[in-house]
Amino acid sequence: MRAATYHGARTIVLDERPPPAPPGPGQIQIAVAYTGICGTDLHIFHGDMDARVQPPTVIGHEMSGRIAALGAGTTGWEIGAPVTVMPTRSCGGCAACRRGLAHICHRLDFIGIDSPGAMQSLWTVPADLVIALPRGLPLEFATLAEPAAVAVHDVRRARVTGDDFVVVVGGGPVGLLIAAVATREGARVLVVEPDPFRRSVSMQIGIEAIDPRHHDVSAFVADRTDGAGADVAFEVSGATDGVTTAVDVLTTRGRLIMVAIHPKPREVNLHRFFWRELELLGARLYERSDFEEAVGLVAEGAIPAKQLISRVQPFEDVAAAFEALESRGGVMKVLVDCRDGVR
Amino acid sequence: MRAATYHGARTIVLDERPPPAPPGPGQIQIAVAYTGICGTDLHIFHGDMDARVQPPTVIGHEMSGRIAALGAGTTGWEIGAPVTVMPTRSCGGCAACRRGLAHICHRLDFIGIDSPGAMQSLWTVPADLVIALPRGLPLEFATLAEPAAVAVHDVRRARVTGDDFVVVVGGGPVGLLIAAVATREGARVLVVEPDPFRRSVSMQIGIEAIDPRHHDVSAFVADRTDGAGADVAFEVSGATDGVTTAVDVLTTRGRLIMVAIHPKPREVNLHRFFWRELELLGARLYERSDFEEAVGLVAEGAIPAKQLISRVQPFEDVAAAFEALESRGGVMKVLVDCRDGVR
Ligand SMILES: [Zn+2]
Ligand SMILES: [Zn+2]
Repeated sequence: MRAATYHGARTIVLDERPPPAPPGPGQIQIAVAYTGICGTDLHIFHGDMDARVQPPTVIGHEMSGRIAALGAGTTGWEIGAPVTVMPTRSCGGCAACRRGLAHICHRLDFIGIDSPGAMQSLWTVPADLVIALPRGLPLEFATLAEPAAVAVHDVRRARVTGDDFVVVVGGGPVGLLIAAVATREGARVLVVEPDPFRRSVSMQIGIEAIDPRHHDVSAFVADRTDGAGADVAFEVSGATDGVTTAVDVLTTRGRLIMVAIHPKPREVNLHRFFWRELELLGARLYERSDFEEAVGLVAEGAIPAKQLISRVQPFEDVAAAFEALESRGGVMKVLVDCRDGVR
Repeated sequence: MRAATYHGARTIVLDERPPPAPPGPGQIQIAVAYTGICGTDLHIFHGDMDARVQPPTVIGHEMSGRIAALGAGTTGWEIGAPVTVMPTRSCGGCAACRRGLAHICHRLDFIGIDSPGAMQSLWTVPADLVIALPRGLPLEFATLAEPAAVAVHDVRRARVTGDDFVVVVGGGPVGLLIAAVATREGARVLVVEPDPFRRSVSMQIGIEAIDPRHHDVSAFVADRTDGAGADVAFEVSGATDGVTTAVDVLTTRGRLIMVAIHPKPREVNLHRFFWRELELLGARLYERSDFEEAVGLVAEGAIPAKQLISRVQPFEDVAAAFEALESRGGVMKVLVDCRDGVR
């Protein structure tokens, strides 16, 4: 079988390996079909997370495939069934787990980061993380279940309703998935994104997108909301200016959902939080219910998978896939075709 | 009658004035007993809010008194009844009022700031802002109803329960009132305050207080919470370090309530908000239900009025009262005795 092995900064090599051991008790072995590359994978590729991933290793956690082998005690599954994997395992004992917040466990094992991931022809995972896919759902599309689960979690945390005006600051894959999920809730959604390609994809999926360098975003939102401002803003850009925009657009008691990673502290207008009784809510990963809802949204077409998947690269070109994403020009989501059958 | 008139930075003069006109329809005239001085009054005294207060004017909004005269159409009240005043009037038409958030109306009339306040022997206010006091409640104590209403609102916004560990960053009057109200909810409460006098008052009212310059606050809280961290932190200090402390002490999904005014943007560790799914909630002023609950808490003794009121100054010494507060040494809450009868 083949495995895309990360060896350290900017080095991903497609290895030929002997087939893995059969799955152990409670494990399922999956013939991986497609694996998507996300922002975290790019960080790893840049060498920024070597302490955590411990190269050489296999990364990747947005995937789809079919069941190849079942370990002892894994009932209710059949060989060939289409599946995806929720790539997070909690410890059960930390302060977060004890509070019923296992999805952000303090000792979380994020599979594909903390342990080997999906960019290999055969991947063995704990059975309780396997999630069934509806038959008929294209396996390319199903790779979006994982990032869509993030979006479902974020939208749920924001308590978005059909009466809300929602601003998404940052129109990359996660931003547009949030925009799509919020739209599905009935909200009016505006994406704020400087990159013209990303704005064009947003427009293609029917979501208005403006360039913050050419619009006064707060005035634009005020104009759309009878002067009130946005009910919800998602900060997905990771930029200082994005935080400012997300705070400034909000109406009284508006909710700001912090989705992006801000590696450094940011200056925040706390007086506005006080004055308007705003809320800031951090949102990270997803619960299983979010993941299952995301699969449903991909299957029903509420997630515009076709427009979000810019490219599917052959397994041989896995390194090129990372480089394409890095340049950021003209690509949204890139998948790697991990199927062994197509060699 | 007498009125403490603010004429501009650092100038408060006790004027002798002719008695005011009788109250108009829907108004009530109150013989003011005591007026407390708060942080906002000090800001005004410093001249920092002249654009808003428009001197010369009478300030003051934490008060108690007795009904002196009733305007036409004010039913259900009798002369001599003890009362306080909720000093906020909303417009009914702005985006906040339309959302049911009239207490933070965008065109709020804060009486004592935006219109004449309570530091006068006779004060005429709209009848719908008058709140009855239980007979037998000392009128000195009743001046704490207004700042206690802020505390009730803050604690309600934080969703404090009896299971919570609460950290109050800043042990001035509002901080200690929050601590008292949270204690009343059954929470364990820790005050973080560098000033030794303020810490001593906190200890007197039975609430543990530590000096952040001599303790690692996060480690202290972790030790008290089985390693988890605080469920709720109130930022009442207005200082940059206070924000950092309030963020750092929180457990997963902990709530940070922004009570203090931060005139400048502050650096905030947004990554921690993301990673631990923290919440930041702005909290400002109070609703009528908060105010009425606060009156009840003062009356039942849950608000330690005796320990919080450091001094009652004669009306003649109103300027000295402001100066005493300014120096901050050894005083918590200072009241001015506005009664005409004691001359
Ligand atoms: Zn855990
Ligand atoms: Zn209003």
